[in-house]
Amino acid sequence: MKTLDQYRVGEVERFGSYKMTREEVIDFASRFDPQPFHLDDLAAAANPIFGRLSASGWHTTSATMRMLVDHARRHEGFSMGSPGVDEIRWVIPTYPGDTLSLETETLEARQSRSRPEIGFVRQRVTTFNQHGEVVMAMISTIVVPASKA
Amino acid sequence: MKTLDQYRVGEVERFGSYKMTREEVIDFASRFDPQPFHLDDLAAAANPIFGRLSASGWHTTSATMRMLVDHARRHEGFSMGSPGVDEIRWVIPTYPGDTLSLETETLEARQSRSRPEIGFVRQRVTTFNQHGEVVMAMISTIVVPASKA
Repeated sequence: MKTLDQYRVGEVERFGSYKMTREEVIDFASRFDPQPFHLDDLAAAANPIFGRLSASGWHTTSATMRMLVDHARRHEGFSMGSPGVDEIRWVIPTYPGDTLSLETETLEARQSRSRPEIGFVRQRVTTFNQHGEVVMAMISTIVVPASKA
Repeated sequence: MKTLDQYRVGEVERFGSYKMTREEVIDFASRFDPQPFHLDDLAAAANPIFGRLSASGWHTTSATMRMLVDHARRHEGFSMGSPGVDEIRWVIPTYPGDTLSLETETLEARQSRSRPEIGFVRQRVTTFNQHGEVVMAMISTIVVPASKA
């Protein structure tokens, strides 16, 4: 597992590829976000923000998480969990057929005051579509070991 | 659709019931958050934060969204979408078998300066388990019509 001292503030990584299929867009929305503009082409066309069928924002965050987890598995290993995220912004819609990718930037890495054996790493996570447009951005905090056990 | 002038700052509502089944916890984690502590009982027991198999935080947010959407459908109707959320806090884990419910509090309701036909409503959304414990909290912003068309 990557430890606190191995994170470098300012470090940027780009990785990931996640295809948002029409089938998964509708399946996710049916389960968790059954608003008409995520389920039905005509209803989406009538919505002034979306214009056409688009993925639930929570589907975009979930796809982003999958890319983060796959990257961790191939590289530093998993974190110990997350206490939360800040400033999720769904900048433009994700549409069926889009292929998403990520950029992460380490903003802060600090040891816990109350539990010195762990640390908190804050990262800006930016999600792009295949046109290089930002579809989503958020600031994520993860818990990591302060040093090798 | 509920319009901007129908929101009251300070208004609190409690609603929703969402059962987190073990099957759905593992299915969601397999797709979007395949970290061992969301998939495997032994790996979860070894994690000092979780202790036992727990749901992905993104599953808890998605279940929360489902309760918000079901409530909107039964009452005021759907919003026009969301530009983002702030301060998601996964306070304690959600475990298989938990039944979640919600409280919403309207924090702010303001007309858009650039597009006066729409408004933004900020709400604190708090997710509870069946013991009345807060499992998650976030601040959500939705877009609504400024007034009836």
